[in-house]
Amino acid sequence: MKLDWVSGRVELTHGGGGRAMARLVDELFKSAFSNPLLDAGNDQATFTVPAGRMVMTTDGYVIHPLFFPGGDIGSLAVHGTVNDVAMGGARPLYLSAGFILEEGFPLADLKRIVTSMAAASAEAGVPIVTGDTKVVERGKADGVFITTAGVGVVYDGVEVSSDRARPGDVIIVSGTIGDHGVAILSVREGLEFDSEIRSDSMALHRLVETMVQVAPGLRVLRDPTRGGVAATLNELAQASAVGMELDEAALPIRPQVRGACELLGLDPLYVANEGKLLCICPPEDADRLLAAMRAHPQGQDAAIIGQVVADDHRFVTMATSFGGRRVVDWLAGEQLPRIC
Amino acid sequence: MKLDWVSGRVELTHGGGGRAMARLVDELFKSAFSNPLLDAGNDQATFTVPAGRMVMTTDGYVIHPLFFPGGDIGSLAVHGTVNDVAMGGARPLYLSAGFILEEGFPLADLKRIVTSMAAASAEAGVPIVTGDTKVVERGKADGVFITTAGVGVVYDGVEVSSDRARPGDVIIVSGTIGDHGVAILSVREGLEFDSEIRSDSMALHRLVETMVQVAPGLRVLRDPTRGGVAATLNELAQASAVGMELDEAALPIRPQVRGACELLGLDPLYVANEGKLLCICPPEDADRLLAAMRAHPQGQDAAIIGQVVADDHRFVTMATSFGGRRVVDWLAGEQLPRIC
Repeated sequence: MKLDWVSGRVELTHGGGGRAMARLVDELFKSAFSNPLLDAGNDQATFTVPAGRMVMTTDGYVIHPLFFPGGDIGSLAVHGTVNDVAMGGARPLYLSAGFILEEGFPLADLKRIVTSMAAASAEAGVPIVTGDTKVVERGKADGVFITTAGVGVVYDGVEVSSDRARPGDVIIVSGTIGDHGVAILSVREGLEFDSEIRSDSMALHRLVETMVQVAPGLRVLRDPTRGGVAATLNELAQASAVGMELDEAALPIRPQVRGACELLGLDPLYVANEGKLLCICPPEDADRLLAAMRAHPQGQDAAIIGQVVADDHRFVTMATSFGGRRVVDWLAGEQLPRIC
Repeated sequence: MKLDWVSGRVELTHGGGGRAMARLVDELFKSAFSNPLLDAGNDQATFTVPAGRMVMTTDGYVIHPLFFPGGDIGSLAVHGTVNDVAMGGARPLYLSAGFILEEGFPLADLKRIVTSMAAASAEAGVPIVTGDTKVVERGKADGVFITTAGVGVVYDGVEVSSDRARPGDVIIVSGTIGDHGVAILSVREGLEFDSEIRSDSMALHRLVETMVQVAPGLRVLRDPTRGGVAATLNELAQASAVGMELDEAALPIRPQVRGACELLGLDPLYVANEGKLLCICPPEDADRLLAAMRAHPQGQDAAIIGQVVADDHRFVTMATSFGGRRVVDWLAGEQLPRIC
């Protein structure tokens, strides 16, 4: 019954509700994530909140491979959900974590993932306060799936929503695009580059806090994950009933990411990011906001990449580097499955 | 690209972040779960809360088979998480739902699950306000996994926790035990009985509200799911550093469940429930609480099944119907994998 953290594997009993599960939960999850709310040992965490607006969000993580340059499924499951809370204009408070494990998965890999998740949670200052573990038979899952949920408190006076973009507003991205998706695909395809391409996976809530302090009137915050900047801006254009005009030359893209995209036949506009945000703000806030973002370690490469325009068709278009203009459409098919 | 709800199947593009995913989300999830918070169309739901204590909880659902007498994975994913919120002594407010879908899963089955989930949510009065969908390749999951999270507001003056049981306290169960697990196993084993055994899956928050009104001093609330009453009471004994003495003759068990357990070699004490709760209360509250539970449609078969005693060994024991006494140990191995 003792857990072998070197060569042991996940067994069905680890999800059965008995002593084996209690041991896994105690030795791994409670030990790694320890905090007063989790340590209370109930099926739910109890905490005190002030009166006000809260947000709640959830995301499932099924990324393949589980480990990649710049992170793993554990850190990603923290960063992604912290970011979804932050994109609601909110300070993240707490996370929950649900694990679905495949029978036979190495306990050493699970420990590595949980340790990384605990480190990401500690670094972000957002504790994992409640969780759940299920185990399914070999061949009925793919190693580990993690679903996190998060809650947070909306900053006073801030009101961001995907339907608030207005013609004349300015579109800002917080840094280089495409890093996460290209890092994942490079591992999958076994590509080697002169300098390693790393995922940008990180928690952006501290950048958001800085942003809402200097520009509380900002309209939209969104992290361009699956489908990349292109899918996200199309969603926002649809929700706000506006068009958008991008400037290709203004898009911050690392040279090695650009090169890898050419090699792989990808358009960086459609590639997932896990440590970047898009912001839409009134024109009078743009310069102040951009300066504050660039002064923050998470926004050094921030750039104004376009503007919101009146357009009944709700098209996202882009002035190309060659002087033309093209429609940046929704992603039609699947570009990169299991990118997050 | 049009979704075929009769013979269509889940494709990888439905999780890709592009137009196909947007269509699935709009036509299925947003349509079924529609409510003002979800309809806002952001990656997170925003709502107003009063100052006070809140709870947060999560559970993953990997039950096999997906459809069973008395419910399906969709209704279960609502009931289970609503109950985990309620067991915190809280009124459930909102749910999130994360879906992990296997490529090739029939869209008609998915629609049936989501429709059932929406009905359970509506019946409980607890809306699903935010969600996420991922798709993995054929053979990398098993149809559908759902992870729900829930938040709620703790009732004023109520303080329940697994470490609050005290010697002399009374243990009450809200109804018959073993129904859920036996219903699932009967389907798996292809067993036929004279009368169908149905899962007891239901949301218990209204029963909890009644209970805290008549006995705000109750100490512990817990739903005996995986591992059944035996595992739950052992956990509580451990957390509270007490022993427990059960009375076998007092355990409410349906005759057909008892018969099926004998046939299957199961002990109903270890079989999962999804619509029952265990309550531990001070002795002076027990009669009033029991009467209130029995007067409630969800507690008609409620019974006092034992008491808390001082015991440094933290044993759960049971006076058997034959006049003996046995230790009710933790579940050692896996009894019923994927029971919830």
